[in-house]
Amino acid sequence: MNPELLLSRIRVVLCRPSHPGNIGAAARAMKTMGLSDLRLVQPKAFPDPEANARATGAVDVLEAAKIELSLPAALTGAIFAVALSARRRDLGPPPGEPRDMAVRLLAEAAQGDVALVFGNETVGLSNEEIQQCHAAVTIPANPAFSSLNLGAAVQILCYELRMAAYSDLPPATDVLATPFSSPLAGHEEIEGLYAHLTEVMVETGFLNPEQPGRLMPKLRRLFGRARLERDEINILRGILAATRKPTAHGRKA
Amino acid sequence: MNPELLLSRIRVVLCRPSHPGNIGAAARAMKTMGLSDLRLVQPKAFPDPEANARATGAVDVLEAAKIELSLPAALTGAIFAVALSARRRDLGPPPGEPRDMAVRLLAEAAQGDVALVFGNETVGLSNEEIQQCHAAVTIPANPAFSSLNLGAAVQILCYELRMAAYSDLPPATDVLATPFSSPLAGHEEIEGLYAHLTEVMVETGFLNPEQPGRLMPKLRRLFGRARLERDEINILRGILAATRKPTAHGRKA
Repeated sequence: MNPELLLSRIRVVLCRPSHPGNIGAAARAMKTMGLSDLRLVQPKAFPDPEANARATGAVDVLEAAKIELSLPAALTGAIFAVALSARRRDLGPPPGEPRDMAVRLLAEAAQGDVALVFGNETVGLSNEEIQQCHAAVTIPANPAFSSLNLGAAVQILCYELRMAAYSDLPPATDVLATPFSSPLAGHEEIEGLYAHLTEVMVETGFLNPEQPGRLMPKLRRLFGRARLERDEINILRGILAATRKPTAHGRKA
Repeated sequence: MNPELLLSRIRVVLCRPSHPGNIGAAARAMKTMGLSDLRLVQPKAFPDPEANARATGAVDVLEAAKIELSLPAALTGAIFAVALSARRRDLGPPPGEPRDMAVRLLAEAAQGDVALVFGNETVGLSNEEIQQCHAAVTIPANPAFSSLNLGAAVQILCYELRMAAYSDLPPATDVLATPFSSPLAGHEEIEGLYAHLTEVMVETGFLNPEQPGRLMPKLRRLFGRARLERDEINILRGILAATRKPTAHGRKA
């Protein structure tokens, strides 16, 4: 597939950025590498003259940026999301390196829109936010000082994406294709499944909402690995719905 | 040779930088990747509070930076120098890509001190300056907007240097390990899950055993992709078992 088209399907999501200058730097970093779809989740200050100043010739990316109230809103329609994580988490997927993750992101982008998710400059991403992503990426850095600037981190990831998009290697086209595959489910469809599953588990007493433990994170990890297709979501939700209905066997709600 | 030692032999030279903020960003970019030797040729404003602000935890690199009157002075003692060039020049060496050039720089650094030379934000390097270098490097970029921020360019080159310096090390062994991973489930455990799932689907009327269609093959494909772990089998069977039990909500088998 055309590298420009692939890169255009990769959105950059900045969660709660504090400094408008970094938003401008991210826009500039994206445009230099051929990306253009910027989403801002609850930016502290935007629009802002400092963002425009740092964007220089990429003000068009800023002007087209979408402002969202939450990460799930910013991920609507995305079939795959990667979180930048500065450190190893207890929960969530183990982080990969930018070079490998760029190849993976492009393979996914051949099937639909994908997202690269960056956290706040000081506190990064929350565990909840990380768990909404399918994979994590960490930029290898000096262990004594691993604090990359947000714009610089966006620059490295976008650079690796461009390098991978224009590499001569044959892209892994159909690694994910399989006999009766339907389109991959979007973020909101997968979240819908998790909500449905939670309801059933609570109703049946399997999940105590007061003490949820790690049950949902474990299930997110399982299904995140599987990369659910739309048809599969429908099947799983059908199974869940059927367990709640009265049946010929005498159950009733 | 020790990667840290190699990286310590690579100096970053900024020629006539206009914006002190970019000097600070360069210092931060260097330190995150394990470089520390910064040389400033005729900086417009330095020291400067804006440089310190953008350097954050890399102020030590700024404080140790040497100020020079000319590029030849900044290259004193270096056995090899690479110029960052935004475009192909009529004069000077043809530019390489950062990835290859990082390998070359490290090979040279095994023999002595080397330099990466960056030009002014607006006018870049002069032809004279380029010709004082042994090689040139261009960062692949969007032809419609190839203007990387100076700090971002330093970040990419230093990142490639770190990647190359540590590339010969044995790879991280536990990329696939995950925090709460349990052993992979055996074939019979997975078949047990499928049998249990089938029973529940038949009981609830979701699966008609007379006309099963492709439901089970689709579910086998989904869970086969996920490579289920033993703990996950237990969770899924727990959910299924809970849907069959009488509960406080009045269901009964």
